Amino acid sequence: MERTEINSLGEFGLIEYLTRNNETRNASTLVSIGDDAAVIDHFGRQTLITTDLLIEGIHFDLAYTPLKHLGYKSVVVNLSDIYAMNGTPTQIVISIAFSNRFSVEALDEFYEGVNAACDVYGVDLVGGDTSSSQKGFIINVTAIGEVAPDKFVTRKNAKPKDLICVSGELGGAFLGLTLLEREKAVYSQTGAQPDLEGMAVIVGRILKPEARKDIVQWFLENEVLPTSMIDVSDGLSSDLLHLCKQSGTGCLLYEDKLPFNEEAKQFAYKLKLDPTACALSGGEDYELLFTISQSDYEKIRTNNAISVIGYMTEAEEGKHIITHGGNKHELIAQGWNHGKSVI
Amino acid sequence: MERTEINSLGEFGLIEYLTRNNETRNASTLVSIGDDAAVIDHFGRQTLITTDLLIEGIHFDLAYTPLKHLGYKSVVVNLSDIYAMNGTPTQIVISIAFSNRFSVEALDEFYEGVNAACDVYGVDLVGGDTSSSQKGFIINVTAIGEVAPDKFVTRKNAKPKDLICVSGELGGAFLGLTLLEREKAVYSQTGAQPDLEGMAVIVGRILKPEARKDIVQWFLENEVLPTSMIDVSDGLSSDLLHLCKQSGTGCLLYEDKLPFNEEAKQFAYKLKLDPTACALSGGEDYELLFTISQSDYEKIRTNNAISVIGYMTEAEEGKHIITHGGNKHELIAQGWNHGKSVI
Repeated sequence: MERTEINSLGEFGLIEYLTRNNETRNASTLVSIGDDAAVIDHFGRQTLITTDLLIEGIHFDLAYTPLKHLGYKSVVVNLSDIYAMNGTPTQIVISIAFSNRFSVEALDEFYEGVNAACDVYGVDLVGGDTSSSQKGFIINVTAIGEVAPDKFVTRKNAKPKDLICVSGELGGAFLGLTLLEREKAVYSQTGAQPDLEGMAVIVGRILKPEARKDIVQWFLENEVLPTSMIDVSDGLSSDLLHLCKQSGTGCLLYEDKLPFNEEAKQFAYKLKLDPTACALSGGEDYELLFTISQSDYEKIRTNNAISVIGYMTEAEEGKHIITHGGNKHELIAQGWNHGKSVI
Repeated sequence: MERTEINSLGEFGLIEYLTRNNETRNASTLVSIGDDAAVIDHFGRQTLITTDLLIEGIHFDLAYTPLKHLGYKSVVVNLSDIYAMNGTPTQIVISIAFSNRFSVEALDEFYEGVNAACDVYGVDLVGGDTSSSQKGFIINVTAIGEVAPDKFVTRKNAKPKDLICVSGELGGAFLGLTLLEREKAVYSQTGAQPDLEGMAVIVGRILKPEARKDIVQWFLENEVLPTSMIDVSDGLSSDLLHLCKQSGTGCLLYEDKLPFNEEAKQFAYKLKLDPTACALSGGEDYELLFTISQSDYEKIRTNNAISVIGYMTEAEEGKHIITHGGNKHELIAQGWNHGKSVI
């Protein structure tokens, strides 16, 4: 494979090269890459901004993460935060730093993933920064979005009796990561090639997650405004406890209602793990966790991609989960600590 | 000195702790830290966004950089990019990553500097991310700004005969860095404490630079709209060549007209360095380099903080500097390569 040294391009040449396919998709993008700042026009809308730092060895392992997927995911995890505000992402800026172990081709692969995500979600990459690093690959993405005036949804306004809802399925990303880590260990000990047969869904969930643009679009079309919302990045229990804390409520979850992917569930059993524990404590599912007023229940129940998993309570009632067996357990904030395994 | 382990707070506790003095200064900041994204209101203005990554060992050396200054500078270098668009910064988001060598107190010092810069420049810190790192301290700041419709100034619209102007004085940051690097080497070899006597200005230029908010304010009050603008971060020649390239012009600079700080000049002589080379190739001065139509000359000459240092030419006339002795030399893009010394 051809290898072009980054030094041969220089910093500005590198930026020009990496962004040569960058398109402007929004009329509001007046000035994009190549100046001191990007200019974004507004028409009575409100702007959203969010940022995330991703560091090799902490957030990702290049032993099993293709750079293209990494580029895609770096964008998606930020867009997920914009959707979690009930907004629409419009622009991103991206900073990367890399040690001299990376070639232009490697960075190009990364940007292919970035561009693919921009295409899928209709956002413009409007700026960034590149640098060398002393060790590994470092990525920071900031996303900008917009939302109709006063239609943004924070973590603060859930009320007791509001229904707790979650999109999609939980636990898949955690089990995908567990699988990849296991195969990596096997490979390093025995040299055996990874066996990912029949595991496409859970591997995809960790390596190339999607943000729930469709759910936010559905809210708009069906005139549902959640009372609070967050994306599931740290694990269901940790993220739900954020909503409770900031809204000043308690909560009651039902284990029976938690949505699992069947492949994830089977793999959990194979590893003798409790799927519920994986859903509660595993992170990176990037589903939307939100609360709605009970009056919106009739609308929500028509959407198969949304599960009602419990309801908010008065703060003094505490935060609990009712298990399959009917027992009531306290919900514990066992977040997803990057760099630490939950099991 | 007390040392609190970061782990003892947890990620969310740490964010709460570090941002406990965070104030909202702009009415447009509807939602700040503590949610998935920040909400910024707009009233027919255009939004600016810029981002910069700063990495220990590449962009800064903690052997002689107080963390408070580093926090201040991390913000200022981003605001400088907003001013370089003729805009007003309004919000920032900041991501940091740190190895376990850093204590809560250390990070707190860093945020003190961040907050000080926010105070001085009237911007709101509205979000961010924190993470562990495998090595060293990593910072990414994204700044958002606004500008009256179509009053933003890019690098693209300089015309031949436009006057080239620069704010303040040049070369000080480079000489400050040279001094600090020299004193660090002396200390590591002999244990002798640094001798920074009489060097407050140049040390301040590298450790705690300021962005030229005043110049942008002056443009507004005096109805001057530069035809192109950039901030001097890579060195005068490199940054001027950006304006030429993107505007499709040549340029002619006059060495006689370049503004130096007297302390910087004397230190350059002491080191047997050419002050002009320091100004052309040294970076991080964060002054504004811009071009104006000749019809604005009468206005510009009344401002003592602005020097006219040359003019733009047709592209085919090339890019040159006329020296003190009257010789004409080609202007070379000898940028400031972070991690490499110019001398």
